[in-house]
Amino acid sequence: MARYDFASDNVAGAMPEVMEALAAANAGAASGYGTDHVSARAADLIRAALDADADIRFTASGTAANCLALGILAQPHEAVLAHEHAHICTDETGAPGFFGAGVGLIPLPGASGRIDPAALQAALAEPDVSYRQPAAALSLTNATEYGTVQSVEALAALVKPVKAMGYGVHLDGARLSNAVAAGFDLKAVATMGVDILVMGGTKAGSTPTEALVLLNKDLGRRLDARLKHAGQLVSKGRFLSAPWIGMLETGAWSIRAAHANAMARKLAALMPFPIAHPVEANGIFVEMDEAALERLRAKGWFVYRFLDGTVRFMCSWATTPEMVEELGSALREIA
Amino acid sequence: MARYDFASDNVAGAMPEVMEALAAANAGAASGYGTDHVSARAADLIRAALDADADIRFTASGTAANCLALGILAQPHEAVLAHEHAHICTDETGAPGFFGAGVGLIPLPGASGRIDPAALQAALAEPDVSYRQPAAALSLTNATEYGTVQSVEALAALVKPVKAMGYGVHLDGARLSNAVAAGFDLKAVATMGVDILVMGGTKAGSTPTEALVLLNKDLGRRLDARLKHAGQLVSKGRFLSAPWIGMLETGAWSIRAAHANAMARKLAALMPFPIAHPVEANGIFVEMDEAALERLRAKGWFVYRFLDGTVRFMCSWATTPEMVEELGSALREIA
Amino acid sequence: MARYDFASDNVAGAMPEVMEALAAANAGAASGYGTDHVSARAADLIRAALDADADIRFTASGTAANCLALGILAQPHEAVLAHEHAHICTDETGAPGFFGAGVGLIPLPGASGRIDPAALQAALAEPDVSYRQPAAALSLTNATEYGTVQSVEALAALVKPVKAMGYGVHLDGARLSNAVAAGFDLKAVATMGVDILVMGGTKAGSTPTEALVLLNKDLGRRLDARLKHAGQLVSKGRFLSAPWIGMLETGAWSIRAAHANAMARKLAALMPFPIAHPVEANGIFVEMDEAALERLRAKGWFVYRFLDGTVRFMCSWATTPEMVEELGSALREIA
Amino acid sequence: MARYDFASDNVAGAMPEVMEALAAANAGAASGYGTDHVSARAADLIRAALDADADIRFTASGTAANCLALGILAQPHEAVLAHEHAHICTDETGAPGFFGAGVGLIPLPGASGRIDPAALQAALAEPDVSYRQPAAALSLTNATEYGTVQSVEALAALVKPVKAMGYGVHLDGARLSNAVAAGFDLKAVATMGVDILVMGGTKAGSTPTEALVLLNKDLGRRLDARLKHAGQLVSKGRFLSAPWIGMLETGAWSIRAAHANAMARKLAALMPFPIAHPVEANGIFVEMDEAALERLRAKGWFVYRFLDGTVRFMCSWATTPEMVEELGSALREIA
Repeated sequence: MARYDFASDNVAGAMPEVMEALAAANAGAASGYGTDHVSARAADLIRAALDADADIRFTASGTAANCLALGILAQPHEAVLAHEHAHICTDETGAPGFFGAGVGLIPLPGASGRIDPAALQAALAEPDVSYRQPAAALSLTNATEYGTVQSVEALAALVKPVKAMGYGVHLDGARLSNAVAAGFDLKAVATMGVDILVMGGTKAGSTPTEALVLLNKDLGRRLDARLKHAGQLVSKGRFLSAPWIGMLETGAWSIRAAHANAMARKLAALMPFPIAHPVEANGIFVEMDEAALERLRAKGWFVYRFLDGTVRFMCSWATTPEMVEELGSALREIA
Repeated sequence: MARYDFASDNVAGAMPEVMEALAAANAGAASGYGTDHVSARAADLIRAALDADADIRFTASGTAANCLALGILAQPHEAVLAHEHAHICTDETGAPGFFGAGVGLIPLPGASGRIDPAALQAALAEPDVSYRQPAAALSLTNATEYGTVQSVEALAALVKPVKAMGYGVHLDGARLSNAVAAGFDLKAVATMGVDILVMGGTKAGSTPTEALVLLNKDLGRRLDARLKHAGQLVSKGRFLSAPWIGMLETGAWSIRAAHANAMARKLAALMPFPIAHPVEANGIFVEMDEAALERLRAKGWFVYRFLDGTVRFMCSWATTPEMVEELGSALREIA
Repeated sequence: MARYDFASDNVAGAMPEVMEALAAANAGAASGYGTDHVSARAADLIRAALDADADIRFTASGTAANCLALGILAQPHEAVLAHEHAHICTDETGAPGFFGAGVGLIPLPGASGRIDPAALQAALAEPDVSYRQPAAALSLTNATEYGTVQSVEALAALVKPVKAMGYGVHLDGARLSNAVAAGFDLKAVATMGVDILVMGGTKAGSTPTEALVLLNKDLGRRLDARLKHAGQLVSKGRFLSAPWIGMLETGAWSIRAAHANAMARKLAALMPFPIAHPVEANGIFVEMDEAALERLRAKGWFVYRFLDGTVRFMCSWATTPEMVEELGSALREIA
Repeated sequence: MARYDFASDNVAGAMPEVMEALAAANAGAASGYGTDHVSARAADLIRAALDADADIRFTASGTAANCLALGILAQPHEAVLAHEHAHICTDETGAPGFFGAGVGLIPLPGASGRIDPAALQAALAEPDVSYRQPAAALSLTNATEYGTVQSVEALAALVKPVKAMGYGVHLDGARLSNAVAAGFDLKAVATMGVDILVMGGTKAGSTPTEALVLLNKDLGRRLDARLKHAGQLVSKGRFLSAPWIGMLETGAWSIRAAHANAMARKLAALMPFPIAHPVEANGIFVEMDEAALERLRAKGWFVYRFLDGTVRFMCSWATTPEMVEELGSALREIA
């Protein structure tokens, strides 16, 4: 039977703090559709962590949270600028177009998942023409799809020309906990001009939950109706919000991300294959030919070949040093 | 502080069997996006309970599961026949139109939430014209929005002329457990011609989960991609499927629904206001003027006035005899 | 062979002024996608007729123009208030939901196609709840679907509370020429607070063309891209705009509508069946049982039974006194 | 003032045969929404020209006709294979996603607008995964965006593996008349396995009209309702169909395309800049640096730089030898 432990950071279960918070939230009756006391408390904790006011809702799906955000920031005949290997461009099965009634994506190049500022500037300079969806927003990702962490300064430099055009900014924070654990200042999200943050819970170690954080509250008109309309407003909302209480009250959200990052560094130290991108968060991407990958899979380890041709290893809150060492041994054997 | 205990059957938390199943499912790594062993086991249990083959997926939202089903059964320029007070017609904030790219709804009358067969026949007899969305499917609900339970024979009589037209059939089973507990034969769903069943978990006493059951497997082309596209494929799928193991292995899904139904009958016996619909499942609908409702709310009990003007009281797996008696006393005081 | 002359005002061909303008516009090369000199001239004429600045585009379809307008004024999770028998509610095959990604319609009652002000006020007073699409705009129609003409004062009284809520206003002017010919002041459209007017060309006597008039220019962001995205930006735009030059430079738009109105009055004078609505524009709606309607059809005249059960007779620019008299004779024979 | 004569083949007006057919079709009353005798006659002529049975409708917009076709062939969570520079991929402002509720496009490479068969095979061999929209159809274009004409054999070789997968095939025939004039057998469209053809009228020299031709009639369920739903069913349908009578009864559709092709060859013979693609239809694409292009524009000739960096010159039915010579002189002066 294949071992999926390093296939993704979402193959892990939920951390104890989350399971305990779910159990605690289960007591008694609660009003429905996100109006409950648990969701209110979770939203307060997120606002405090961000040091910012915001309208906050919870969804079970990151796809949905991110694509709802894009649909808020861009009209259907407009487009969103994003790294060409951003999750919304490559892994969402067209969900941006579904949530946005055909909204477009403008892919931008850049090394290791970071948007090249010159490419962004060039895209922003494109004239408006009727036959092409013009940019209306920028989507950022931190940590990136390639396990790199973008600094506050680097992101702010991307945000600035976009805001100067009057466009919106979205931050896909599926792995924001890993970025924060690597030194990214969470409080800078609000001050740098991000309009909508999707703060990742699932990959951080929760049961399914993502926080949709509207830092620009002007965008939230009838937000609950918007969620319901899109099939994203569950009745027992407390079970999507409770995990955040578990993760934020204890600090586990970033503490356990720091562990995942450390496991990645440990794996990097053991890695006999060339590492393709800086190991700054919880992923390692290596050059490995197909024969080697087959040998690794034959040993029972299932991992994916990624968009740039490298093979990806992901660590999570649940990764143990022993697992890393076991994998390290296997890698050395097949190298 | 308002007490929401009877405001809906979704104000309750999750039954112990569900919480235990979540804890059990949390162990170890599992492959993502519904391909895990927990989801496979849950689907097997549902197929066994239905005594039918089917493609089965799990969503966090009943809105989404039902509206995905409608979008599979009807094209955007077509429409779905449903009771005028069916949830999809009255409570989904336009989600059918979103998931179905503008798919229409054709509301049909009928007493106590049951579609009038003559009205259905009349609708089916309408000629196809270009300026109106023609029917392509029928949506049923059991138990109904008014707490009545439709017999296998009654539903089969509605299904028959619809299938004769070559149209599809959807069953909204948000409260199917209550119908089953009231004597409805679950195995009849597959044999009567239902194409897609949404089998309700949340209101039955789970954390958020609904089972999308494609009894007509021809409809399931690229079903996982369809779910992802619509923001309904979560990565840690085991947390949406595990509750079903807890509810079905133990029988709690219908056993606890039988309790909810019994609590409704108990409340009906204590009810000093005229009861508007047969109490066959877990809801009681009563004639109560606004002044009386205000007095009840002033006593701390929050309940809703429903579509037909009656006031609705819902019981759940978590409703206790003591709560019913306490509410009964309050009702007698304000009557 | 059936005679369709009174079946609708769109069974007529195009008036000579339109055919001549098309021929004139056909000379030489012109830039594409509505950037041509003919479209610029037509838009100038419409602005002059309305005595207002506006962004103006041309579509071949009234369905499309109206539904684009609704999609601009309301977000997908919101709804548009309209008369329950307005064209967008009854005759557009779900197009509002398609153009608006599931945008909703809130039907309002009212005699003879006019919205009841009290019903509008009640709808505006509905609380925002997550399970229902809240109103975001009002759609008006003048002349109405029942051949009545609403005064400037009557429309302004409907617009006022809607604007006070901050909502938008759309005017379906498919038969605005008939209203203007009946005394409605075209220049009042802009001053009363209409945000988007769809000014009807087709039923007024043109080849297919409707003018999408954004009186509120803030709503027109990337309007050409929006039209292209929705399949409503034709390359040889001059052929959709030229008819307006023919109709407006000569005054034929309202002069010929006055003729159509006069023909309706003439038919009303000859009508042996009870007339159900005031004959103020170009339609007559009469009480006629099915047997009588069959006798009329057997004589070769094809007309429709309408939403309120009456039988509708429509006059157009092409209706002649002789045709009216011929129909009048037939009606007397079958009465 | 800029001369647009060679900017596109849609800057020309309509050919005399079309204007005469419009005038002829204008007589008398006609039933609405495409049920008229003119549309019936035009559809008959197209079926005869194709030597095939088909459901045929007419739209004012090629964007709409093509995107409706894609939405019929692929579900929203699926995708359409097309040349990376096909019109649907590059020039439609996201309309495929709008008409198809987020349907995807899979761009394929290939020289001079022809899809590389190996790239197609590779795309067809991609495994179905939930995170990517899988192919469900192939879209072809003839003549291509680069003025080349694909042979029946070449297209059939692309169609064959697609049909073997059970997928659908769409042919964008915006310039099919130019391909036919260049020797492409129109009757082969039906026999090679194309499911939906969009047969181009506008660029062939008509007022706005494209024919949506469903050669696979199983796909046409409630086609009129589908068109109305999408804002593509005009009431006075005769004005969209009449041009086809003018173009097909006289043979002008292909005769005038042959003229346009001849003008392109004539221009090619005079062209002082390197020609980048074979001149097989009515377009010439040349290598020209920005300074030269500016000099040409300064002389009053407006033409576009195309997707591959070349400068495009398009001829039409209205292009005269004198215009070609005049342009040729200008080109020699600025070369």
